[in-house]
Amino acid sequence: MTERAILPWSDIELPEGLSARLYDGWGPLPDEGLDDVEVYVLPYDTGAEPMKLLSRLPSLKLVQSLSAGVEKLIPLVPAGARLANGRGLHDLSVAEHALALIHASQRDLPRWFAQQATASWEREHTRSLADSRVLLVGHGSIGQAIERQLVAAEAIVTRVASTARPAERVHGVGELAELLPSADIVVLILPETPATMGLVGAAELAALPDGALVVNVGRGSAIDTDALTAEAVSGRLRAALDVVDPEPLPAGHPLWTAPGVIITPHIAGGSASFYPRAKRLVAEQLRRYAAGQEPLNLVRGKDG
Amino acid sequence: MTERAILPWSDIELPEGLSARLYDGWGPLPDEGLDDVEVYVLPYDTGAEPMKLLSRLPSLKLVQSLSAGVEKLIPLVPAGARLANGRGLHDLSVAEHALALIHASQRDLPRWFAQQATASWEREHTRSLADSRVLLVGHGSIGQAIERQLVAAEAIVTRVASTARPAERVHGVGELAELLPSADIVVLILPETPATMGLVGAAELAALPDGALVVNVGRGSAIDTDALTAEAVSGRLRAALDVVDPEPLPAGHPLWTAPGVIITPHIAGGSASFYPRAKRLVAEQLRRYAAGQEPLNLVRGKDG
Repeated sequence: MTERAILPWSDIELPEGLSARLYDGWGPLPDEGLDDVEVYVLPYDTGAEPMKLLSRLPSLKLVQSLSAGVEKLIPLVPAGARLANGRGLHDLSVAEHALALIHASQRDLPRWFAQQATASWEREHTRSLADSRVLLVGHGSIGQAIERQLVAAEAIVTRVASTARPAERVHGVGELAELLPSADIVVLILPETPATMGLVGAAELAALPDGALVVNVGRGSAIDTDALTAEAVSGRLRAALDVVDPEPLPAGHPLWTAPGVIITPHIAGGSASFYPRAKRLVAEQLRRYAAGQEPLNLVRGKDG
Repeated sequence: MTERAILPWSDIELPEGLSARLYDGWGPLPDEGLDDVEVYVLPYDTGAEPMKLLSRLPSLKLVQSLSAGVEKLIPLVPAGARLANGRGLHDLSVAEHALALIHASQRDLPRWFAQQATASWEREHTRSLADSRVLLVGHGSIGQAIERQLVAAEAIVTRVASTARPAERVHGVGELAELLPSADIVVLILPETPATMGLVGAAELAALPDGALVVNVGRGSAIDTDALTAEAVSGRLRAALDVVDPEPLPAGHPLWTAPGVIITPHIAGGSASFYPRAKRLVAEQLRRYAAGQEPLNLVRGKDG
């Protein structure tokens, strides 16, 4: 019997009648016994290599991505196969990284870590997150998870999304110009679309009060990097960024060393909380596939 | 008219008939015109000097501390004067610092800050707070504020306090031995009492699983420093400490450089969120004093 599924983990419970082989994205691509593979769960965050397999699976019926954004995958999925994404798997991981960046900036963690390196006990009061006015730009499932944590920390949250939803007190991005001047912290958690690219440029940054903190855990392209760099290098604005444009940020870029700037290398989504959620989803998708049921998180049906 | 109150800030609204002078704790002690002072609000976090004034105020009726712990102050307050503390003013500040320490440890922030210094974009998955099992030891107002933020981050919280309160699902510290083996994170937010000193010693630390994180934002004396140092230096346990025993931690102490250890210099309570709360309390206490009403947060009435 050849395997009918390719999975990135070996500890997934398989439904009766379905067998699986392991491909975790790190070794060489499997190149034999591919003719009967109907389900391919792509390894997460291992680069472009795993996508090459998509054109070599003639029996493919279901492609499961573990990412929420699958723009690059869609054109590679063969006709006759469905595509499901990893919507929701990363929400908590991204949300808590946003909180980590905000806390680190407000409570001056880089300063204390530097002091620790010299065994210094100098003390000073810091900013806080409590009472801070946070403009949360992006209010999908991740934005909502961030909001719950901000509210628990007694920050004052104003919601903004691509489209205004007055009944939910969500402002539209068109209102940013009026909202920015009273924000202590702006958190961007936007998908990359033509409407969000360059949303925060020089004018928007100039509208922020002195000392405001710009946090980005969505896509780097939402911010004009040159404009942000200028505001950060001058010391007028602070920033905490998990995503930048371009990525990786080139060595020598002035944003790396600007005062009040924290940069992490696009790792918000990849924490331990992802794995149990991802494995539960994969097990459920295999169960549904074996039972002839509709998969969850379908991005594209079999007719494209 | 001489002033009847000494306050650490000049922007407090005064009730009619009450005048105030400023002493912020940094300059020399006031040494004239002290005979009519009835209310003394001690400056926050400026050392022992401001306490010396207590013996030079013959008309003193009300002493207001801005700290929650006033053990050292009680014996210095003259007979006939009442003492009120700063209970609750620091809750959010301490709670969010606990979250900052936890996030920084779980999401490896020291590593990313070090990478930033070399403009490196190397990526790796980290631990998360979501799904982590947190043993929250201390369940007063700060502990409860920490819990709300942990729950919003979808951590799994087990409550422990000095005394078990089964109706609130709060375990007693006597149950620690059974609870520690299944904790990913232990957060200590305990006042210093004979019962809490040395509560976490070598045996308790040994009961924690490999890689567990020990967080202390209460009092350093709750942990046996030598025992924690041994577990941290060996790399078996991690720690994130705002308080240590002794303070300051001496230069050259191995805890400063142990792997997986973050130390901040007892700054959890002193963030910006403290000031508006403290000023509101002081204004309300002055209003009550002028109106002949009972002050809030009384620790000791006028008869000791």
